[in-house]
Amino acid sequence: MIQQQYPSQLLEKAVSEFSRLPGIGRKTALRLVLWLLRQEKGDVDQLADAMHQLIHNVTYCHICHNISDTETCPICADSHRDATTVCVVENIQDVMAIENTQQYHGRYHVLGGIISPMDGIGPADIEIDSLVHRVAEEQIQEVILALSPTMEGDTTNFYIYRKLSGLDVKVSVIARGVAVGNELEYTDEVTLGRSIANRTLFDGK
Amino acid sequence: MIQQQYPSQLLEKAVSEFSRLPGIGRKTALRLVLWLLRQEKGDVDQLADAMHQLIHNVTYCHICHNISDTETCPICADSHRDATTVCVVENIQDVMAIENTQQYHGRYHVLGGIISPMDGIGPADIEIDSLVHRVAEEQIQEVILALSPTMEGDTTNFYIYRKLSGLDVKVSVIARGVAVGNELEYTDEVTLGRSIANRTLFDGK
Repeated sequence: MIQQQYPSQLLEKAVSEFSRLPGIGRKTALRLVLWLLRQEKGDVDQLADAMHQLIHNVTYCHICHNISDTETCPICADSHRDATTVCVVENIQDVMAIENTQQYHGRYHVLGGIISPMDGIGPADIEIDSLVHRVAEEQIQEVILALSPTMEGDTTNFYIYRKLSGLDVKVSVIARGVAVGNELEYTDEVTLGRSIANRTLFDGK
Repeated sequence: MIQQQYPSQLLEKAVSEFSRLPGIGRKTALRLVLWLLRQEKGDVDQLADAMHQLIHNVTYCHICHNISDTETCPICADSHRDATTVCVVENIQDVMAIENTQQYHGRYHVLGGIISPMDGIGPADIEIDSLVHRVAEEQIQEVILALSPTMEGDTTNFYIYRKLSGLDVKVSVIARGVAVGNELEYTDEVTLGRSIANRTLFDGK
């Protein structure tokens, strides 16, 4: 492919920077940048400013490691939430996904990753020690493991379970089974097998 | 859909700004923003800075209206290029696409749009008057119309042709026909019909 000739160095620089974003190639970057050029200068400044503000001012909750504008995140600071239950998740998106269900009223612990030897991520690289510390120090009665049902998730679940085994805490894991709305015949065998093994009593109410 | 709860106002603001970009929804915006959070602060500042620089410092060539860092773009300023031929295109991407072919050595005229009554774009909204002015003032012998082969492109071609009809200039249009590498049987009838009507002598050299 011929090296694209840009009529402007400023344009080329902006396209290069945008194309570093994940999932955005040079064509998309050029389309975005030319779109920006057609917008009000003030609007583009707002975008640049929001990025700058986020990067330099955002912080992480000192308790649960969720992203936050303050030292303690709104969830940990909320006295109405159940401080005896901690839900362990991989990342911030998972917190948001669980919050959207409106089914959980405890606190969180964001690991910031998952044990993955293939990617060189070991237990020391994620927030496991701080979780063990929290369980030892706070009045936590239940730790809910809500990691993705992958090999890495299972490894991490098992590692955390072992680390917490000496402490007086109940460790649970989110239910795995047939997804609501899915067709049974298209569900993979492992999931289907687990959904039978972990069957629950039918609630006829 | 439940309104997504963001744990951070700064995060929410950044996601809102990113999701205004064309083709980027809130999920993608969140993914991009969280990716940015994992990068070096300096790298993100570079992206924000490139955007700022582009918006505030980029200009348009006073001759051809192509994007440029200088008053006259590198193409118009290049004395080796043929100043007697002007290729009329819709936008900056089209200039880049034609430059990439390395088959054209004249100058350009960027309309900045195309006549489209459906979108409320009339002849006065795009750089047609300045094209007529250029043809009248400069030593231009040929105007090549290189707009997209759509109804809007044809309308614009015809309008420009009429506008230039009083002036001593040859007006040509880029060839329409079967695309190189395409299967004949899958080519639409209009294109195939035109390719027969506009057949050229076989060059057996």
